[in-house]
Amino acid sequence: MKWSKKEKKIARAAFEKAYKTEMQRVREAVSKKVRDFSDENDVWRLHDYLTRKRREIDRKYDYRYSVLIFVLGRLLKEGFIGEDDLDGLSQEKLTKIKRFLEV
Amino acid sequence: MKWSKKEKKIARAAFEKAYKTEMQRVREAVSKKVRDFSDENDVWRLHDYLTRKRREIDRKYDYRYSVLIFVLGRLLKEGFIGEDDLDGLSQEKLTKIKRFLEV
Repeated sequence: MKWSKKEKKIARAAFEKAYKTEMQRVREAVSKKVRDFSDENDVWRLHDYLTRKRREIDRKYDYRYSVLIFVLGRLLKEGFIGEDDLDGLSQEKLTKIKRFLEV
Repeated sequence: MKWSKKEKKIARAAFEKAYKTEMQRVREAVSKKVRDFSDENDVWRLHDYLTRKRREIDRKYDYRYSVLIFVLGRLLKEGFIGEDDLDGLSQEKLTKIKRFLEV
């Protein structure tokens, strides 16, 4: 599937918006965990959480055009981007991406 | 080197006090880092810090009698325990442990 210059720009912006939003959520989760620290091992539980999240986010945010339909579909499904963010992509791409909403 | 029952109790208490103190410092450092979060990658910098600290602390707090002189010597040198915490150990052990203060 070919991505035009304009489509690449739209996809990149949606991707970055999602990443920013997701990282903001992680920051909020970290702040809450730190506020709730009680025993000393909570520090290592925070470390475990961050290890998991980092692996998950590193895998999810894969900006290769060959997988971008899947990635955008997942971000849409998870609510990190809205349909508006995809305005301007071809109808074929939109259909494929929106199919993830039914998963 | 033999450790009497009484000495084991003293060593264990000193060891645990040091661990608690050190973990408290890590917690304070984490809280400060979280308060100072600015860009989104600070979350991963915090993760890197915790990965380093965890490895360091796991290695340092090695409660085997065969290495305990070294461990207590290091904790004394680093200020996580004081000489008072070692009261009751044999003179031979105290001399060896305190030698670390000169390192």
